[in-house]
Amino acid sequence: MTTGADLRAIRKRKPLVHQITNYVVMNETANATLALGALPVMAHALQEVEEMASAASALVLNIGTLSDDWVEAMLLAGRAANRAGAPLVLDPVGAGATRYRTETSRRLLRDLDVAVVRGNSAEIATLAGRAAEIRGVEAVGAAGGPELARDAARALGCVAAVTGPVDHVSDGEQTISVSNGHELLGTVTGTGCMSTAITGCFLAVRPDDPLEAAVEALVAFGVAGEEAAKKAKGPGSFHVALYDALYGLDPDKLDKQAKIQ
Amino acid sequence: MTTGADLRAIRKRKPLVHQITNYVVMNETANATLALGALPVMAHALQEVEEMASAASALVLNIGTLSDDWVEAMLLAGRAANRAGAPLVLDPVGAGATRYRTETSRRLLRDLDVAVVRGNSAEIATLAGRAAEIRGVEAVGAAGGPELARDAARALGCVAAVTGPVDHVSDGEQTISVSNGHELLGTVTGTGCMSTAITGCFLAVRPDDPLEAAVEALVAFGVAGEEAAKKAKGPGSFHVALYDALYGLDPDKLDKQAKIQ
Amino acid sequence: MTTGADLRAIRKRKPLVHQITNYVVMNETANATLALGALPVMAHALQEVEEMASAASALVLNIGTLSDDWVEAMLLAGRAANRAGAPLVLDPVGAGATRYRTETSRRLLRDLDVAVVRGNSAEIATLAGRAAEIRGVEAVGAAGGPELARDAARALGCVAAVTGPVDHVSDGEQTISVSNGHELLGTVTGTGCMSTAITGCFLAVRPDDPLEAAVEALVAFGVAGEEAAKKAKGPGSFHVALYDALYGLDPDKLDKQAKIQ
Repeated sequence: MTTGADLRAIRKRKPLVHQITNYVVMNETANATLALGALPVMAHALQEVEEMASAASALVLNIGTLSDDWVEAMLLAGRAANRAGAPLVLDPVGAGATRYRTETSRRLLRDLDVAVVRGNSAEIATLAGRAAEIRGVEAVGAAGGPELARDAARALGCVAAVTGPVDHVSDGEQTISVSNGHELLGTVTGTGCMSTAITGCFLAVRPDDPLEAAVEALVAFGVAGEEAAKKAKGPGSFHVALYDALYGLDPDKLDKQAKIQ
Repeated sequence: MTTGADLRAIRKRKPLVHQITNYVVMNETANATLALGALPVMAHALQEVEEMASAASALVLNIGTLSDDWVEAMLLAGRAANRAGAPLVLDPVGAGATRYRTETSRRLLRDLDVAVVRGNSAEIATLAGRAAEIRGVEAVGAAGGPELARDAARALGCVAAVTGPVDHVSDGEQTISVSNGHELLGTVTGTGCMSTAITGCFLAVRPDDPLEAAVEALVAFGVAGEEAAKKAKGPGSFHVALYDALYGLDPDKLDKQAKIQ
Repeated sequence: MTTGADLRAIRKRKPLVHQITNYVVMNETANATLALGALPVMAHALQEVEEMASAASALVLNIGTLSDDWVEAMLLAGRAANRAGAPLVLDPVGAGATRYRTETSRRLLRDLDVAVVRGNSAEIATLAGRAAEIRGVEAVGAAGGPELARDAARALGCVAAVTGPVDHVSDGEQTISVSNGHELLGTVTGTGCMSTAITGCFLAVRPDDPLEAAVEALVAFGVAGEEAAKKAKGPGSFHVALYDALYGLDPDKLDKQAKIQ
């Protein structure tokens, strides 16, 4: 693992991470990106997404509050990022909850070269063609195990990162589990979206190894969650401490703090 | 009062509360919903609002940053919720400030079966056909008394919840006043919108008694505000403590903490 | 300097500050406005922006997540504010990063009577016709000195406020530097946008002296940043403390706390 070294690279290079994401978490993912050490930019206009994506080191697409114009912008930006060689991470928020979300996720995965898809077990299971139960944007019922990540990676042709109490990340061959994190992450909206944005940050400095980048992102975000929980009295103070913890992540300790298997 | 029992029901059942709300407070109302114990989902695309609203236990409509597509989505979602029997709460943010807001609020009230309308005294007075003074989205001048809530409930044919230093909730027959809360609530944007979202949560477990649900929501939110104020040094720390307090609400104490009349 | 007196006027009169701003920071600029003591309102629908702008004491235009409908709304609102005599502050977020942002900023400056343009050195340099380097929405490379503010003010025909480690504000004749602030401001997204909103608040009570209003806003915001930093452990706790500090600004001390030259 080179999580510490890659965090150092993020802080040194300050890569631009272009995000087309949902209204609910825009501020949150921008702040998480900034706290980690990268530079976020939000831009969704059809007139500028190609230009912005071409200048970025990674692209984050998140369908949490999608509509047709935004999907069109995601496709334009995604193709521009693909042409420029910038890696792309997709967050299929609510796939399985409505047909529109499921079909949009499938379209983005089909039309774009996606490096990593990051979602909860219900979202990823839906995209992998399995039965899944989702309530709004929350997975309910049994969590997906490592085989869900592996099967999804094979079915979708990209790295699949399935997050939950334990995260499972797979490229279809190798599957790695990350046990970092804290249950308070489930009490704040957009923490999943933040982990996707953080994945974009690590992809920006690790474009050639999306499996490693995705694992490192979940380690870093999970460790920050553990640190934040120590100071939290509930979801509000946890949310605040999470940004402090991302900012305070110690590259020298990170690889030792990682709980991976 | 059964506020404690209904809070327990929310936390146990985790009802899905579909919210079509304004850009300013989306994150805030989602987090308030989650901190209380319910599951929020934001979705506004014409292609999916009916499907999402049909799956939800309550629908929250908030016109704080309206535009035509969003109003159309509110109507579609509202009709779907009505058909599915899911209760609906409307927040007519800024009614009275512009004709567009006033007319949109009236249209939603006319075309949909609204269980509760929750607003400040100027917004509710406008909709009840009274003179009112509003500056942007803030009521200025005299606060509405219990008779405003009663008259509005009669005029609009639904429960009216008029919030302010003291809240008044009426179904046109019975009028209940809630004195919980704290003046710091007025220093953070979107606390009114949060109280509407919380109303949606209580409606989800009390669909047959919107008067009771609206009162319980204002009690719970007001008690959380009181608890948060104990730890606050200003609007920022109050805002954070508010989520902690919603999360920490004690069902065993809530009915004793209620200041209702 | 009359920063203290003008802050007192804001708190007493509670001017309405209409903001058409980006999705990322809407909640943040609304809360900063409210914490300072003014009343924010967000409205972007073509049907209502003229009515809302006409009722406001100042208008804030921010292109951080622009699209065509929003630009059209900004033009409508801007013309209404101009007709009503309400001062207008423009935040050209990301000018220089994409042609769309650069051209939109130029169009707003050309078609509207702008009192103050507030941006980072790369954004302002772009608009002044100089070479500039911007990464997303962050200026990289050399900061602009006082001559950038002066030249931009002359070129654009309005007060230019160039913020950075030291802020420079100029009307083309007189140039004032403000050294208040703290480096943690750079770790939270939207602090530039907040300073623009605060500029709108001071313009609301100082419509005839935009140079003075812009300087006072940067002093007030900078002092709040200094106070917040004392309690911060990172970007999250700093962000929270910033609202507390804006709320707690002491008009009696503010002019002594100012670091201007």
